[in-house]
Parts: sequence; C-alpha cells; structure tokens
Amino acid sequence: MRFLAEVVISLKPVVNDPQGLTVRAGLHQLGFAEVSEVRVGKHIALEVEGDSEAGVRRRVAEMCERLLRNPVIEDYRIELREGGSR
Amino acid sequence: MRFLAEVVISLKPVVNDPQGLTVRAGLHQLGFAEVSEVRVGKHIALEVEGDSEAGVRRRVAEMCERLLRNPVIEDYRIELREGGSR
Repeated sequence: MRFLAEVVISLKPVVNDPQGLTVRAGLHQLGFAEVSEVRVGKHIALEVEGDSEAGVRRRVAEMCERLLRNPVIEDYRIELREGGSR
Repeated sequence: MRFLAEVVISLKPVVNDPQGLTVRAGLHQLGFAEVSEVRVGKHIALEVEGDSEAGVRRRVAEMCERLLRNPVIEDYRIELREGGSR
C-alpha cells in the first residue's frame, strides 16, 4: 500500500526563531496587527510504500531520527494517511 | 479569541524540487528504499487574535497572498484551530 506521510519539523519552543520574528515584523508592517507569534518550520511530504500504517509510521519516525530533524534544536510530528498524492 | 493557524507552503506540483530530490537520495542511501517521492515545503505557525474562525481564516489567506507565499511557484493550505499554543 502507498501512504502519504507529512512530517512537520519545528524549532523547539526554547530555540530562538529569527525567521519567524522577521515574518511577524513583515506582517505587522502590512497591518496584520492581530498576529502575536510566528514560528517557521519545515514541511516534508513523503510517498512511502508499506504494509501497515503502524509499520510506515515507525519507519518515518526512524527517517526523522536519522536524517530529517536536528535533535538538538528541532521537534517533529508525523501525519499519515493511505493513498499518496497520485 | 486566540487561534492557532498552521500554514503549509508547498511547491506547485509542476515545479522542480531539488531539495526534495536530495532528501530522497539521502533516505535511499540510508536504506529507506520504500520512499518514492519527497517534496519539501515550509510550515508557518501563527498565533492570531480574532472574533470568528471564518474571519481569521480570511485574514490568514490574505497574509498568504500578500507576504507568505510566492504565487508563481507555491501553493498554500491553512489549518485553523481555537486555542493557540499557550
């Protein structure tokens, strides 16, 4: 079966996010004063073959641990659904 | 009310994604042969004040149109929930 895994890599809450501050400043300058905080992270969409959702989730978590995220400064979150994009 | 808006900025399907190809090559090299496609995008989390979900969604769409995404090469998607991160 084919799965679409969406991995969100975000900076840990204690880590400064200069990119987020810059985006927030830009939004304020454009008049979006209702924005109080902005955090910028990465979104990685993966098409993965596998037998079961649990198995694919384990493998994607392993990909995050071994390549996709920097454990010193980043957290990750995995969303999985059957089907893939095509 | 405070809302947490999550914006996913992804490259349009017709646009090449060299970063995604590099990540896929890295995953294959580590033995994750079940990965057939990788697309890398941005994830932007915003804390936004507003009166209604519909109103906040409209404003966040406007932020995407005016600042966050490049309409030539990128699509965006908004997920919204009440509460925010703190």
